[in-house]
Amino acid sequence: MDEYAKLSINQITTRDQWSLAEAITGYGRHGIHAISVWRDKLLELGIREGARMLSDAGMTVTGYCVGGLLSARDDAVFQERLEDNRRMIEEASTIGAECLVLIAGGIEEGSRDIDGARERAKEGLALLLPDARAAGIIIGLEPLHPMVCSLRSVLTTLEMANDWCEELGAGDELGIAVDVYNVWWDPNLAREIARAGNRICAFHVSDWLADTRDLRFDRGMMGDGVIDIEKIREMVETAGYAGYSEVEIFSERNWWRKDPDDVVETVKDRYRRYV
Amino acid sequence: MDEYAKLSINQITTRDQWSLAEAITGYGRHGIHAISVWRDKLLELGIREGARMLSDAGMTVTGYCVGGLLSARDDAVFQERLEDNRRMIEEASTIGAECLVLIAGGIEEGSRDIDGARERAKEGLALLLPDARAAGIIIGLEPLHPMVCSLRSVLTTLEMANDWCEELGAGDELGIAVDVYNVWWDPNLAREIARAGNRICAFHVSDWLADTRDLRFDRGMMGDGVIDIEKIREMVETAGYAGYSEVEIFSERNWWRKDPDDVVETVKDRYRRYV
Repeated sequence: MDEYAKLSINQITTRDQWSLAEAITGYGRHGIHAISVWRDKLLELGIREGARMLSDAGMTVTGYCVGGLLSARDDAVFQERLEDNRRMIEEASTIGAECLVLIAGGIEEGSRDIDGARERAKEGLALLLPDARAAGIIIGLEPLHPMVCSLRSVLTTLEMANDWCEELGAGDELGIAVDVYNVWWDPNLAREIARAGNRICAFHVSDWLADTRDLRFDRGMMGDGVIDIEKIREMVETAGYAGYSEVEIFSERNWWRKDPDDVVETVKDRYRRYV
Repeated sequence: MDEYAKLSINQITTRDQWSLAEAITGYGRHGIHAISVWRDKLLELGIREGARMLSDAGMTVTGYCVGGLLSARDDAVFQERLEDNRRMIEEASTIGAECLVLIAGGIEEGSRDIDGARERAKEGLALLLPDARAAGIIIGLEPLHPMVCSLRSVLTTLEMANDWCEELGAGDELGIAVDVYNVWWDPNLAREIARAGNRICAFHVSDWLADTRDLRFDRGMMGDGVIDIEKIREMVETAGYAGYSEVEIFSERNWWRKDPDDVVETVKDRYRRYV
């Protein structure tokens, strides 16, 4: 049995080194057959060419990143964001992604209305569900770490993600993406992972560095930080998740500066030991 | 009526400019008659001299910072931390502080055991309650922002602080310190502030900057960020809190570099407009 059969790499992990074409061939060369794709990289290559390369390489696409950012008050901006998300649903479908990862959006400049931003993002999500259903795409709603609440996601906890799923009465088209980096600190983690159950459609891994220097781009490689990743993986599996562990590391100071082949080999080694 | 009668300044706000003696006279010169004191600054001046100066200046001491850091696994280290906290309880009593602010402590180097760290910190807190009671000192248990979970506080939510208070069956000697910077992102904020009720023994204000650059030392002045401080103040007052609003700003890039008299005048102006 291939010990990397359930390992996926989010291409952000080699953001500065590899294009999408290079990532597909690079990961494949190291025996990794699953990838999560970022939109800017896909558009750079071309959607059709990207879809063809992914298919020809036999790559499972565990996610398409990143939809959402739906918290805008201005109606024109909000509608524009909805249209953009609808295009992303189509793109996700074209490349056969298992889910479109969606983040809520932050708090707009000049606003202090976190409740309003949350309502708006939930409203936007509700408006996208029919499109996802029609396209056969799962939206993977991802709560982010509270430290990026203002910048990227007013959806700050797994509990709130579960609440939204219930409040929207969504079907299978709405899932939840659990990223250990975003949720490891949460006292209600075990409870809310169990509650998410079969909604869990993605599991992202990386590590929290004790000397974290940046709110977005200083994630650690598994094993270099304080997160008990294996324990959280067991929680999601007990909840019913049987999919991939996707390595997603934003790292300006370290991994984005290294030889990408070494990065992939390190990912494989740490996956065996810490995931 | 003095419009600053319920305004306190935590001396960390002028950390790099003023000693404790200078802060006491400086704040007083601007009509501020309440202060929160840090231990290193008090020890630098001398505990008795500090107590005398605070008393002579008619300063209300809204807090003594910062006790706790009780998550150590090693028994010798844990006992040493307990003894140090007991000394801080005595010091808080000597300077007439309204509470000893206590933070849980983080995750030790080499550990990934967040549950164990939480249990240990709670155990330590339980062991300090009799000392606080005997000294007539309130321990102000302060949950910190999840981004400092690893470094400073495995107690990451107000809900968990409320849980600990209940689980320990504590009396009036255990309170909760609500700092808007630490809790503003929390979807359960209103519920947990109401639940804390009369336990709330301190209310700290500052602001979250949209372009936050550091996990500990980049707080903003009220009005410069995204937090609806007034709304949170109303929540704590509705819950029964009638004490001071204490301005506590750690700011390496800005406020620690400015003329301290200007900082205090800005605090007063922003307090009127945003708290």
